[in-house]
Amino acid sequence: MNPRMQSKAAPLSENRIVSLLQKQFRVRDPSLVMGIGDDAAVVRPRGCKELWLITTDMLVEEIDFRREWLTPGQLGHKSLAVNLSDIAAMGGRPRYYAVSLAIPAATTEKWMSDFYRGMKKLGDSHGALLVGGDLSRSAGGITVSITVLGESLKRKILYRSGGKPGDRLYVTGCVGKSAAGLKLLERGRKAPRAAAQREALQAHLKPEPRCAAGLWLAQSGLVTCMMDLSDGVSADLPRLCRASGVGAEIYTSWLPVFRTASDWGCNPLEMALHGGEDFELLFAVAKSKIGEFEKIYPKNLPPVTKVGILAESQSVGYAVDTGGTIIPLANRGFDHFRR
Amino acid sequence: MNPRMQSKAAPLSENRIVSLLQKQFRVRDPSLVMGIGDDAAVVRPRGCKELWLITTDMLVEEIDFRREWLTPGQLGHKSLAVNLSDIAAMGGRPRYYAVSLAIPAATTEKWMSDFYRGMKKLGDSHGALLVGGDLSRSAGGITVSITVLGESLKRKILYRSGGKPGDRLYVTGCVGKSAAGLKLLERGRKAPRAAAQREALQAHLKPEPRCAAGLWLAQSGLVTCMMDLSDGVSADLPRLCRASGVGAEIYTSWLPVFRTASDWGCNPLEMALHGGEDFELLFAVAKSKIGEFEKIYPKNLPPVTKVGILAESQSVGYAVDTGGTIIPLANRGFDHFRR
Repeated sequence: MNPRMQSKAAPLSENRIVSLLQKQFRVRDPSLVMGIGDDAAVVRPRGCKELWLITTDMLVEEIDFRREWLTPGQLGHKSLAVNLSDIAAMGGRPRYYAVSLAIPAATTEKWMSDFYRGMKKLGDSHGALLVGGDLSRSAGGITVSITVLGESLKRKILYRSGGKPGDRLYVTGCVGKSAAGLKLLERGRKAPRAAAQREALQAHLKPEPRCAAGLWLAQSGLVTCMMDLSDGVSADLPRLCRASGVGAEIYTSWLPVFRTASDWGCNPLEMALHGGEDFELLFAVAKSKIGEFEKIYPKNLPPVTKVGILAESQSVGYAVDTGGTIIPLANRGFDHFRR
Repeated sequence: MNPRMQSKAAPLSENRIVSLLQKQFRVRDPSLVMGIGDDAAVVRPRGCKELWLITTDMLVEEIDFRREWLTPGQLGHKSLAVNLSDIAAMGGRPRYYAVSLAIPAATTEKWMSDFYRGMKKLGDSHGALLVGGDLSRSAGGITVSITVLGESLKRKILYRSGGKPGDRLYVTGCVGKSAAGLKLLERGRKAPRAAAQREALQAHLKPEPRCAAGLWLAQSGLVTCMMDLSDGVSADLPRLCRASGVGAEIYTSWLPVFRTASDWGCNPLEMALHGGEDFELLFAVAKSKIGEFEKIYPKNLPPVTKVGILAESQSVGYAVDTGGTIIPLANRGFDHFRR
């Protein structure tokens, strides 16, 4: 989750909390394949053939969105999309979802109906069923929390771990487009005329989770590790690297940035490295397999672009071009509890 | 969820919203056994032997709790307990849970650690594993949303529907104790000396979900319908009746009310009928089975008390004694969007 709407010094960071929880909740249970620390939890319940994925994501008004920026339908869509993206990032198929919604007492029936309609339309298009939820009055703004259950296909799941030095890094789609859309919103540009601006707004307000690509990548057997880009490359890539015990180099000239964002004064590279909420997939393919991978990757799925390599060293850096010096990549992606 | 801390006219009611959602999300899917409208959703995923239960419940600061009333550990406990109670109400076994938490930026690591410790202790005691979650900064107060996955045992699940006229109604434990505890808190009595007051506070702040009883009741084959009492008898019993297509009569002289509450000026019967958050189980047994039921119900489970009968008529009422006139039971239980 992303927008940097508030900036206050805080004693916590998301990475630190996750690490605390991993320690406090270290459990050994034969049915728990992956607990805290990946895009979704993975369980193998007794008597079930497939692996099951569990993910939950919360959107908080004034932190993750502003009500005047999106329609109720877009909020419904986006709240579910960020969760479906986590299932996509594991290579799973979304199946069921439950929604907790806290809303001010003055919320109208029409608002509710539009919100759920936007959510349902996205869920339907991915084969995910709304099974239930909870509704609460809120003393403040709107809070939406969704939990999605997904299942594997033939037990093939991709984790953040599994990357090896030498693997090639890829991303789906384009990075930095959502952040460029956020910039427009922060400047009050809700209904721009230019197609590129509309595209950037769409990416921010109504992101499309990469479920079909994620499933294909998991089934291909060619991918070593995967995650989705929710907090920005500079926040997320180090997480992938830590989980795989590797470093990484990315080459800025390879990055599929959203160039047109410079038309409205954004630096496309900055947006790509540090902007969040692209919900594209970041994954690695063994060097020996990239020829086969690029040959058989389906044309009807979102385009993929090679952006770098996984390295022996534990550091994560980027080069301004493929021949250039590697610059350490400072984490300036989104953290709810930093800056 | 309960406390009536705010009172504002609002255009929505929870029952109305649930009914809207049931219409909007009517789905026919072979794997969806029960969608919106019971204590938990029930799914039969492909390749799974057991039925799976999904429930989600959200606690919102200033609406569902006040921070100064409970410790972080109690909040963790209660947030999970209300969800486990929904699994208990279906006769299932809790297995996995995911937690979304929105907290002010100034929250300390110690607060976090205490919160999760309180939650984990309860989860551990019921065999439920924390598998993941999401963490967000909040611009306002604390919001906790938990989703629990549970499983059936031998596919035996109890629904709100299934009750028949003539069935006898039972509750576990005592009703109105939590509301009596809430009254103490509202009057600023956080650390009372009297044992009964401590008991009432405990019931409100650290409720014990009736998982073992729920599972036994589902396995017994003697129960026709079941739910948990979260919003109060006068709000919840009509829901059980609507789902079963029956009416009900309860006899106040049979109700296991929390008599001592009168010591601090509460009307125990009012608390029992209209107070929420008891998280006791309300269920029915066919008249021909009550002898067997009362004989074999295990002594080590929370006591059960017969409180009334299901009736042909669609109305829900109560009598001040078993011979008295039946008075219609007005719904004065908790609704987030009413008064």
